[in-house]
Amino acid sequence: MAVTTVVALGGNGLVRAGERGTAAEQLANIREACEALEPVLAERELVITHGNGPQVGNELLRHERAAAEVPPLPLYVAVAQTQAEIGALIEAELRPATGRPVACLLTHVRVAEDDPAFENPTKPVGPFYSEEQARKLEGDRGWAIAADSGRGWRRLVPSPLPLQIVELDSIRTLVASGTIVIACGGGGIPVVARQGRLNGTDAVIDKDHASALLAAELGAERLIILTGVDAVARHFGTAEEERISELSTEEADALATELPAGSMQPKIQACLAYVRATGGEALITSPEALAKALKGRAGTRVTNGNGPR
Amino acid sequence: MAVTTVVALGGNGLVRAGERGTAAEQLANIREACEALEPVLAERELVITHGNGPQVGNELLRHERAAAEVPPLPLYVAVAQTQAEIGALIEAELRPATGRPVACLLTHVRVAEDDPAFENPTKPVGPFYSEEQARKLEGDRGWAIAADSGRGWRRLVPSPLPLQIVELDSIRTLVASGTIVIACGGGGIPVVARQGRLNGTDAVIDKDHASALLAAELGAERLIILTGVDAVARHFGTAEEERISELSTEEADALATELPAGSMQPKIQACLAYVRATGGEALITSPEALAKALKGRAGTRVTNGNGPR
Repeated sequence: MAVTTVVALGGNGLVRAGERGTAAEQLANIREACEALEPVLAERELVITHGNGPQVGNELLRHERAAAEVPPLPLYVAVAQTQAEIGALIEAELRPATGRPVACLLTHVRVAEDDPAFENPTKPVGPFYSEEQARKLEGDRGWAIAADSGRGWRRLVPSPLPLQIVELDSIRTLVASGTIVIACGGGGIPVVARQGRLNGTDAVIDKDHASALLAAELGAERLIILTGVDAVARHFGTAEEERISELSTEEADALATELPAGSMQPKIQACLAYVRATGGEALITSPEALAKALKGRAGTRVTNGNGPR
Repeated sequence: MAVTTVVALGGNGLVRAGERGTAAEQLANIREACEALEPVLAERELVITHGNGPQVGNELLRHERAAAEVPPLPLYVAVAQTQAEIGALIEAELRPATGRPVACLLTHVRVAEDDPAFENPTKPVGPFYSEEQARKLEGDRGWAIAADSGRGWRRLVPSPLPLQIVELDSIRTLVASGTIVIACGGGGIPVVARQGRLNGTDAVIDKDHASALLAAELGAERLIILTGVDAVARHFGTAEEERISELSTEEADALATELPAGSMQPKIQACLAYVRATGGEALITSPEALAKALKGRAGTRVTNGNGPR
């Protein structure tokens, strides 16, 4: 039976610590990621999503540094640009690795205009500025700004919850035809509905939440979130570190409140949302441990606690 | 009966003379273009392609101005970025205008590694440089460079002929499902086949030739190339100017050699290639004249001379 799988690649896995994000570096990293994906590449129905943190940071910096000569584009367009940048590189590796058709679909994700995140932008994006520069941008462009851990000032943008994958029908059509689809890059291009239109809005959507929504709307049997660690752990990085191999939705709920914000918390919440919506199985692991994790010997599995389906 | 139509929008129509290419300017221009497209928006099978000249120029400038801080990406990735930039803006207008699903597919186009264009780069792209800067880039990055009409020095890149639309199957699948597909932006991301892989290559593909190839491979009944003038003319801009409403393939062939290189010549050649491959009808006109042209009262039609099918 065809199992629809959604796999989310971390943006940080595509531009590693110490790298600058050249196309060659990204291609080499994507090649490794594709090798790690080998156990799922034969799935008839496969969607790959990805983050874009380092790439959108680089792109926003390009927009700013050329601003005196060519107009900076809005953040939502920069997100679109990174979908194409990363999608083109992933396609280049996935096509020869699988011999299957691969397509990257520009993906918009609808968020609520009254999402409380818009009242409270929390996500730093783009280059660092001096306080003076930042204050000027605050005035000129209406940006929210904040000092960032002593390294300067940055723009803050909202991170609203995803409500709808705009191109869902097209993704479904392509997946059903046996095409590996790359979608929802960087969490999707954020849009809000206004007078019958979907307008781009300057925000970033958590890519794990967008992937979970996509997996739920597709009715996928499996959501795999790949990250820098093999499994979720309690007391991470301490002597009491304890890897967790299995979580029921109740346990995941409790753990999400216990873990520090950021890092693992949104991944667990995204898995929870998906498992609750579908009864499917969510898996958090690293690319390196994926093969073992699929055999139940690594990773953290979130299920509805009713055992394997 | 369903008529498959491929419509090519000019990149210069999306960023007009005197404009800088802000998202707001592009959205306003795309809105006008979409209004002009009204007569074909009800076609069940519709593909929209577009140029990217001003946009890719802006993007390459962004890459260069930030080069000291973040790595410039290769030209083929910049082409991909403009597919997403323009695709996102077209989607925003087309969806409310049609109420139909619209999808932008990242499109790679294969060219021959031994295309003679690679021996003779002719297409200027990106920012202007001083001779000294240009010579340095020639040495550092292996660029071909040339003085450009007294305004400085520019990079020259090859413009090879398109051979294959890599994502053709996905485009066909989406079109058949009733989705309006945006594809082949900027002539497509150029790739060459090498050891079983398709590698991005730094070139630009003429968007009209890529659109003609796509129309032929889709078996489209109609190719429409929208540009800045209502029809092709002999002796354009002189007292003897004579608009041409109909061209057989033989007449088009003769005219293409008679016209100056650039401008209309590649559009007529693209129409010819499409008409010869399919027996379909190609139309060159402006967005403003499209409605009249579809009724045979404007524009230049290229057919195989056997009358309407």
